[in-house]
Amino acid sequence: MKFMSLTIAGATALGLIAGTMVAAPVAAQDAEALINIRKAHMRLNGFNIGPLGAMAQGDIPYDAEVAAASAANLAAIASIDQTRYWAEGTGRPDAENTRALAAIWENPDDFRAKQDGLVTATAALADVAGNGLEALQGAMGGVGGACGACHRTYRAEQ
Amino acid sequence: MKFMSLTIAGATALGLIAGTMVAAPVAAQDAEALINIRKAHMRLNGFNIGPLGAMAQGDIPYDAEVAAASAANLAAIASIDQTRYWAEGTGRPDAENTRALAAIWENPDDFRAKQDGLVTATAALADVAGNGLEALQGAMGGVGGACGACHRTYRAEQ
Repeated sequence: MKFMSLTIAGATALGLIAGTMVAAPVAAQDAEALINIRKAHMRLNGFNIGPLGAMAQGDIPYDAEVAAASAANLAAIASIDQTRYWAEGTGRPDAENTRALAAIWENPDDFRAKQDGLVTATAALADVAGNGLEALQGAMGGVGGACGACHRTYRAEQ
Repeated sequence: MKFMSLTIAGATALGLIAGTMVAAPVAAQDAEALINIRKAHMRLNGFNIGPLGAMAQGDIPYDAEVAAASAANLAAIASIDQTRYWAEGTGRPDAENTRALAAIWENPDDFRAKQDGLVTATAALADVAGNGLEALQGAMGGVGGACGACHRTYRAEQ
């Protein structure tokens, strides 16, 4: 049996701090791997937010099937346990190539609460996204708010 | 309200072929975006397979919490609807920078069945991964088999 790569980050980022959804420090090469994983995760979010935002804003026609699938995808992505992503020292100023701020590790409980906010908002969106444009629009505010709440506090502007 | 980017692929890859989990052709710049999304998805798989494979093979100690979280993550990732990823013409030889083969679009039902195989195998893994090393090892074969079944048929060797 042969498994995929990325076992380095897997094997070294296992010193978890229970309940806070941040992890113990890792070596520099592992920090880079974790930053890339976080970016991959965010890319999947963006890919699914894309058509939902475009529909909500009237840029493309509402499509119930695509709306429902994209919203369900967002909820599935939000449900991913991110503990191993957030090893201490993998934000600014310790690490480059990331907009994650050190405030994440200074406020792990609030960071976790903001992630949980996205779980709640995407679940609510998934419940209604296939029920018409107005239902979609009504639930998108919660998702945009959850994204923004975390980004405003824990992501660098540039 | 401001949403994330990637709306181009979102807006243009909406010509779905129902039930087959492949989508209508897209422009070249959108093909590149879709290929990158598929790679991001696969990266998340690799990140979560990493510690599970290392535990199963005895390279790192078994950790029930990490095993359960990683397996649940794999199941969540497998549940993501991939229809929009697989626009026709985004495999070889039409597209570069991808190992996806044209056979995907020649056998959409089989491709879908193989994706469903991963959904089943990762759900079975998630059910038992926290129950000890032997339980984990017993369920990893199914996941490895599901990965390999699709890769052997639909992914170029290099």
